[in-house]
Amino acid sequence: MLRTHTCGALALADVNKEVTLSGWVQKTRDKGGLIWIDLRDRYGLTQLVMEEGRSAAEVIEVARTLGREYVVSVKGIVIERVSKNPKMITGDIEIDVTSIKILNKSKTPPFTIEDKTDGGEELRMKFRYLDLRRNPLKDSLMLRHRLSLETRKYLDSQQFIEIETPYLIKSTPEGARDFVVPSRMNEGQFYALPQSPQTFKQLLMVAGYDRYYQLVKCFRDEDLRADRQPEFTQIDCEMAFVEQEDILNTFEGLIKHLFSEVKNVDIEKMPRMTYDEAMKLYGSDKPDLRFDMQFVELNELVKDKGFSIFDEAELIVGFTAKGCAEYTRKQLDALTDLVKKPQVGAKGLVYVKYNADGTFKSSVDKFYNESQLKTWADKMNAQPGDLMLILSGEDEKSRKQLSVLRLHMADLLGLKDPFNYKPLWVVDFPLLEWDEDTQRYHAMHHPFTSPKPQDIALLETKPGAVRANAYDFVINGVEIGGGSIRIHDRDLQKLMFKHLGFSDEQAQDQFGFLMNAFEYGAPPHGGIAFGFDRLAALFGGQDSIRDFIAFPKNNAGRDVMIDSPSIIADEQLDELRLKVVIPKKD
Amino acid sequence: MLRTHTCGALALADVNKEVTLSGWVQKTRDKGGLIWIDLRDRYGLTQLVMEEGRSAAEVIEVARTLGREYVVSVKGIVIERVSKNPKMITGDIEIDVTSIKILNKSKTPPFTIEDKTDGGEELRMKFRYLDLRRNPLKDSLMLRHRLSLETRKYLDSQQFIEIETPYLIKSTPEGARDFVVPSRMNEGQFYALPQSPQTFKQLLMVAGYDRYYQLVKCFRDEDLRADRQPEFTQIDCEMAFVEQEDILNTFEGLIKHLFSEVKNVDIEKMPRMTYDEAMKLYGSDKPDLRFDMQFVELNELVKDKGFSIFDEAELIVGFTAKGCAEYTRKQLDALTDLVKKPQVGAKGLVYVKYNADGTFKSSVDKFYNESQLKTWADKMNAQPGDLMLILSGEDEKSRKQLSVLRLHMADLLGLKDPFNYKPLWVVDFPLLEWDEDTQRYHAMHHPFTSPKPQDIALLETKPGAVRANAYDFVINGVEIGGGSIRIHDRDLQKLMFKHLGFSDEQAQDQFGFLMNAFEYGAPPHGGIAFGFDRLAALFGGQDSIRDFIAFPKNNAGRDVMIDSPSIIADEQLDELRLKVVIPKKD
Repeated sequence: MLRTHTCGALALADVNKEVTLSGWVQKTRDKGGLIWIDLRDRYGLTQLVMEEGRSAAEVIEVARTLGREYVVSVKGIVIERVSKNPKMITGDIEIDVTSIKILNKSKTPPFTIEDKTDGGEELRMKFRYLDLRRNPLKDSLMLRHRLSLETRKYLDSQQFIEIETPYLIKSTPEGARDFVVPSRMNEGQFYALPQSPQTFKQLLMVAGYDRYYQLVKCFRDEDLRADRQPEFTQIDCEMAFVEQEDILNTFEGLIKHLFSEVKNVDIEKMPRMTYDEAMKLYGSDKPDLRFDMQFVELNELVKDKGFSIFDEAELIVGFTAKGCAEYTRKQLDALTDLVKKPQVGAKGLVYVKYNADGTFKSSVDKFYNESQLKTWADKMNAQPGDLMLILSGEDEKSRKQLSVLRLHMADLLGLKDPFNYKPLWVVDFPLLEWDEDTQRYHAMHHPFTSPKPQDIALLETKPGAVRANAYDFVINGVEIGGGSIRIHDRDLQKLMFKHLGFSDEQAQDQFGFLMNAFEYGAPPHGGIAFGFDRLAALFGGQDSIRDFIAFPKNNAGRDVMIDSPSIIADEQLDELRLKVVIPKKD
Repeated sequence: MLRTHTCGALALADVNKEVTLSGWVQKTRDKGGLIWIDLRDRYGLTQLVMEEGRSAAEVIEVARTLGREYVVSVKGIVIERVSKNPKMITGDIEIDVTSIKILNKSKTPPFTIEDKTDGGEELRMKFRYLDLRRNPLKDSLMLRHRLSLETRKYLDSQQFIEIETPYLIKSTPEGARDFVVPSRMNEGQFYALPQSPQTFKQLLMVAGYDRYYQLVKCFRDEDLRADRQPEFTQIDCEMAFVEQEDILNTFEGLIKHLFSEVKNVDIEKMPRMTYDEAMKLYGSDKPDLRFDMQFVELNELVKDKGFSIFDEAELIVGFTAKGCAEYTRKQLDALTDLVKKPQVGAKGLVYVKYNADGTFKSSVDKFYNESQLKTWADKMNAQPGDLMLILSGEDEKSRKQLSVLRLHMADLLGLKDPFNYKPLWVVDFPLLEWDEDTQRYHAMHHPFTSPKPQDIALLETKPGAVRANAYDFVINGVEIGGGSIRIHDRDLQKLMFKHLGFSDEQAQDQFGFLMNAFEYGAPPHGGIAFGFDRLAALFGGQDSIRDFIAFPKNNAGRDVMIDSPSIIADEQLDELRLKVVIPKKD
């Protein structure tokens, strides 16, 4: 080893020891014949000291040539510091250097290797290996490692076994777009990279493996939005001989274990809320429960009072923002502008200030008097000093618009403490959702999700009303996991494919292997998958997943560090029997 | 849960408990009003019992409809067995069934779900989910899970952190053939799937992560030989601030940990042997040390005695097969036939029997008398009763031919006990090997491997003689792992690329990111990768890796269960700007 200790190891107990450290030069100071160097590695910083006259001349000479990020190996004696630094783990000691060796030089890095760096996003992506030296990124990757290890420990303790499923699988048109991989040995044919190991984990249940998990890369060729990656990692799990409640309990256990082991946080309760309830109370299937602001329906209080907008609306719905009665015109206008943005789509915003003195001031004073507004306040649980915010229009749309406003208010009010964790299960999702583009129903979760037995009859008459044995795990308004009880009966699976617009032949061609498997003793089973990148970011208290991935791609799906994707040699294309045909742009 | 216990859980202590079990019908017996069913799950077998008259009529009725592999859930009382079965974990008890429910029927499986099945290879691959129900496969996957968990535990205890590297990377012509992935968002460009995370793990060392590992899928588009898979799993590791000996010691620790935790086997010593020594003594860079039969050179004893074949040979080399002096003519002919096979390529085989009575009988009696043969025996450490087997010809070729014979003799003599583990490190591999096809040197390991500092000067004058800081980990004649100390100096890396026939431009285009990284403080580093599928097979005492992979591909790279690869839709090809062009066969 080119070291006896790391740069995060030495303390007072080591004084007088001769040690060898290796690492990167974080900082040098050279003052009146005294030279200090902060030497850095993954484990911390250690201060080196040299003094003209006392230290060997060649040590001083080499030390004076060192630039930032040089890699050096030093030998020296641990001594007690005169002025200790309680903020550093090794702040009680320093190393009196007796020899120093440059292991590798460094050009001046294009940005500073500090917690707050001066480097722009693009430059840091290009020099990712330098950005990764900074503590915030190092801490993120260490946290991720810890989470993966604890996930495995917990699941192993619950008799889950990790089984690797293949990466070169089969392309299916259902769901998002596949990345495909041309096969050289099978001319004109392609593998696909998995969007998830869904069918394989179900086959493992048929095979009797009972409790499966895998931390696994998944791939989706989607147009990238901010903070979405073409490759991402899932904690993928499946269980047999279970009902929905068993799965929820098992994975509550996992989440509690992770919070307790990794964050030292006790999560007491994980409420369950139906999809309908979540939509009704928060306008979202992933409500953020760190703050209240539940929705209140006002239809019966506000209709037929001459305000045509409310009269014509299917739904009038609002929530109370605590302590916001003193919002200025400008602040209220900003809120109105927000909900009227095209991507939100509301026509306008009605506000009612419940002033501290008990009076009311609203944008609908023309139509409603104070005593009427007082009944609103009572229904909306508003107190003097509060602000009521109300939208109207079509039911579902209004709720979704109000949800945007609710989250925005939480931002304004500083209610989104990233380290206040409020998990919940959202259950009883609809089985199908209507797709305007294709004018047919799509599986909301995926085609293998089981309808609730009591709703199966509705499949023929009212498909949109069929509820599924499907559930999402949500923390702080972010969907972290989702799963379902699966279909394990061939006939029901065939029926589902029919309702999703598959011909018998298509269903057989794409998923015949699964339906065949269901004929050989498939047990009842269900599972869940957690977005591991997202989980790590959540534990790290950050919104973006990018710094929890060592080598992420940019929004164009490119790795700018290695400059990929790239063109390949003609011989490679020939071997694969492929030709690139890029249509000319006019 | 659809069960209170698993089928491997119940014992005498549970007698009189009411339990619910779920599982598969392994076997039913129906004799004189008594029905027994063996119910199976991942954890074991439990015997169910029903009796006409005593058990409920509907229980008997349902029981009589059950076929093999039906999935059922039964309720009943644990009772002590009259005739216990000490071979079963649950052999002391049986379940007196009070109710029985069919969870799913099963068609008759196409082969028996038994340890020894009647199913052929192809059928079992097609119905892999049924084959996976058999104990040998289940045990293999459980063993693999255990190995992965213990690998992670050990490396974590040594402060390694697992970091995921990307799967969508960049194609490089060096090494084996890449699988490529067309990018839709970057027209005409391709990602490649990693053959290994080599450059990324080196960048992690540059980034200061110091001790990295990953259990990771790798991909190679090679023509498949038996027991080679297009996707395979590596335990991929890298360390900074280390020398070769540090890496060997660290991973000896890992291997010892795995043997001790998973197999309860104590591995005492892991000898090191240079590549030159291994070739000299065993004619192989992965010698099987479960048996002796070291090679002995006979040149000085056998030349100039009138036997022209030996006189003209560069090398005369042999080994002693203990106790084989009584081999018949037929047996000796078979050995000669073996070494004369085209894929082995020897011209003939010389044998010398050292008979039990002290006399000699050889195929070269015309040229050598008994006292001469006695000197051979002394040199080859042969005793009365032994057989000496000798080849001659060009040095390297003869050794490789003799190695084939040595392994064959070990087979014949039953010396290949799969559970007798003899690990070793082979070190000091050549840096380069000459490739006849391309008429240039190739990197024996890969282009990032460091030459031994004292040999660098030979790069210009005698490239084939340059030794590398490269090592393989071998057990029982199988290469399980390999690695090297890497180059961390830009100039040396450039020199290497030059010697491997890269132009400056090619080197920069393909590996510029790595060489740039070396300019910003790259530490000395090195690593190793273990073939995880192979390691699991070795621990399982099997030669083939196929049953240690849940869903392997066949020798044509096909998954016959899901029927992949397959053609994809024209719209998919259009989106990717690709056209399939298969030349017509005449």
